Amino acid sequence: MSNESTAVVFIEFQNDFTSPGGVLHDAVKDSIEANSTLDNAARVLASAREHGAVVIHSPISFAPGYNEISSHPYGILKGVVDATAFVKGQWGAEIDARFAPQPTDIVIEGKRGLDAFGSTNLDFILRSKGIGKVVLAGFLTNCCVESTMRTAYERGFEVVTLTDAVAATSVEEGESAVRFNYPMFSTPTTSDAFIATMESSRDLADTSRGY
Amino acid sequence: MSNESTAVVFIEFQNDFTSPGGVLHDAVKDSIEANSTLDNAARVLASAREHGAVVIHSPISFAPGYNEISSHPYGILKGVVDATAFVKGQWGAEIDARFAPQPTDIVIEGKRGLDAFGSTNLDFILRSKGIGKVVLAGFLTNCCVESTMRTAYERGFEVVTLTDAVAATSVEEGESAVRFNYPMFSTPTTSDAFIATMESSRDLADTSRGY
Amino acid sequence: MSNESTAVVFIEFQNDFTSPGGVLHDAVKDSIEANSTLDNAARVLASAREHGAVVIHSPISFAPGYNEISSHPYGILKGVVDATAFVKGQWGAEIDARFAPQPTDIVIEGKRGLDAFGSTNLDFILRSKGIGKVVLAGFLTNCCVESTMRTAYERGFEVVTLTDAVAATSVEEGESAVRFNYPMFSTPTTSDAFIATMESSRDLADTSRGY
Amino acid sequence: MSNESTAVVFIEFQNDFTSPGGVLHDAVKDSIEANSTLDNAARVLASAREHGAVVIHSPISFAPGYNEISSHPYGILKGVVDATAFVKGQWGAEIDARFAPQPTDIVIEGKRGLDAFGSTNLDFILRSKGIGKVVLAGFLTNCCVESTMRTAYERGFEVVTLTDAVAATSVEEGESAVRFNYPMFSTPTTSDAFIATMESSRDLADTSRGY
Repeated sequence: MSNESTAVVFIEFQNDFTSPGGVLHDAVKDSIEANSTLDNAARVLASAREHGAVVIHSPISFAPGYNEISSHPYGILKGVVDATAFVKGQWGAEIDARFAPQPTDIVIEGKRGLDAFGSTNLDFILRSKGIGKVVLAGFLTNCCVESTMRTAYERGFEVVTLTDAVAATSVEEGESAVRFNYPMFSTPTTSDAFIATMESSRDLADTSRGY
Repeated sequence: MSNESTAVVFIEFQNDFTSPGGVLHDAVKDSIEANSTLDNAARVLASAREHGAVVIHSPISFAPGYNEISSHPYGILKGVVDATAFVKGQWGAEIDARFAPQPTDIVIEGKRGLDAFGSTNLDFILRSKGIGKVVLAGFLTNCCVESTMRTAYERGFEVVTLTDAVAATSVEEGESAVRFNYPMFSTPTTSDAFIATMESSRDLADTSRGY
Repeated sequence: MSNESTAVVFIEFQNDFTSPGGVLHDAVKDSIEANSTLDNAARVLASAREHGAVVIHSPISFAPGYNEISSHPYGILKGVVDATAFVKGQWGAEIDARFAPQPTDIVIEGKRGLDAFGSTNLDFILRSKGIGKVVLAGFLTNCCVESTMRTAYERGFEVVTLTDAVAATSVEEGESAVRFNYPMFSTPTTSDAFIATMESSRDLADTSRGY
Repeated sequence: MSNESTAVVFIEFQNDFTSPGGVLHDAVKDSIEANSTLDNAARVLASAREHGAVVIHSPISFAPGYNEISSHPYGILKGVVDATAFVKGQWGAEIDARFAPQPTDIVIEGKRGLDAFGSTNLDFILRSKGIGKVVLAGFLTNCCVESTMRTAYERGFEVVTLTDAVAATSVEEGESAVRFNYPMFSTPTTSDAFIATMESSRDLADTSRGY
């Protein structure tokens, strides 16, 4: 499969998760350190741009006051509201500068839920652009990334999960998800292995063009 | 059903449709005049805000260059691209000032397709807020409004279509949709009749609170 | 696009629509006659099987008593319930013998709503099998066929509508849908033209295999 | 919330999982024993019928030969195909006699994927019947049950997971899912506690009717 039909989806590389001072950063920093999440994801981002894969950013955000959702949330969305996380227009909801979208990237709109397909234009855009392979990185290993992986598999995409470019609220949670659940719905791989795949696909493409 | 569980969805009241100079305005102006679309929709908007219904705006927009969609669109999306309509950040994609969102309104994100459910967070927000009745106005009578009506019906909402607050690219197209298709998937009504319903629901709510 | 990645979807070729004595047959028989719907659809079915396209049947049915849906339906589903149409296990819900599924055909399950994508495994199966082109025939021109066309377009398929293999509750309704709405969301074509396309795709495939 | 608006969804209580001789039974029998899954689920089923909750069965099945899906599956669907599990018309795909549907139960159709919402009429039926609370039991704790939980949460339902009426391919996998993931997307509870809730809701309903 050529890199043109591959999309790398960066899920919630936003300051509230990635940067000191972000309201949820302390919860994920151990897992980020254990995986070198940010370094690996940054290298994948650079390689995807270099080798012609589609780069997609999938941030989550809410209007101030969280008026779009129930006034009595439960589960993980209650956690988001209680932490006053991902408020549109504020620093915590901004995509981390190291992962800032470039003009040729695509920024998914609408994400209010956990599954990046559930409340966004992600599926529409992937279909419209003829994407067959979906590669996932981001936060949280067992929440948004996992829900997105499950739905992408269900919708017939070839799903790749980057097991060292994700992070969770504890190392144990992340490892359990990767060990038990990721293989059912994806091909788990390392960032280095995926980068190598992109490089060799490009070479094949070049060869077939007669270079 | 109380007004709190009613959402009025304003579909694409954007300058490219509503305002002289908009790239698609000439195509719809006859139908707008025949229905008094803008006046009726403006009265419904004011009444919804006054009587406590949820006001939702559902604009469509695309990044400059239409990078989110196929480079070879067909059908209605080809028409949008060929007209260079609804480009994000430009005047034509802006919501008409007469329908400008207020802070308590909800602005749906993500719309790239025709069905307002298909590529947005509309369903997520309606579910989360406990909305049972969905009321539709906007453009085009037989395109986005009709696709949204069909899906809202399919998803179990009570659907109301405002037959004089919509417009199409010809009077005949609009009338055919309203006559043949709207009754299968909605309760078609006039703007005045719907406003009267909101007023009486409010009165009932007031009475039940002992006023 | 090869015939292998083309699916022809036969929507509701069930006795209640197609056969004298079916509870909704009288409502559609004028339109069936005007289009020669059944003859055209039968020729497409034979040709699809001969030339290697995927044949899909999408019947609608309900448990006796309609326990799966609201006890207070409105719109088109009210019409279905009031007519006691499409009751599972009864003759009216059976697929017309002329269109009986063969073992290599796929029969879609779950259809309770109008859009063949909305309450079924159609999308899952199309994605899983790598289908790119969806060709539609059946009932009603402006109800289930049109809803399915709109959603197939929205989900990125190449949609073809067979304008003489569909039927509606009046000739006028059918013609309005085909004239005004089908071109926005599909490439409308005749059964003969589509059959010719399948034949030439097969020939091309044969040639490329060195025959 | 009254029992009428509560649906208990029994996921894949089919012989291939539940009965000695089923092709996947050995894989789950330790977890079944550890949880007393079948006993707990049977008591919940009896109680739901007694107290007026909607009983829904969600089996998975495939046509002989698995023609509906890719000829090159990966992940969990590859496991299903390799084991020749859940073949329609065979004993292994039949719902276990202890959980046999009664005429007033609803049997979901179409399930080919893992998420019970993804390829079925479940959402359509829940919406149509006005269900607000979805209660989950079945197989596997961290596969179909978890995917269904995640999507039900995403679609705005109040989700309850019965932590002792589920089973996985190992005790550890099941416990990890229940401990780390279930609280984000549901209210985890025991079968006894849920039965007590149904009983008290019935009593409240009786009282409000003046008994």
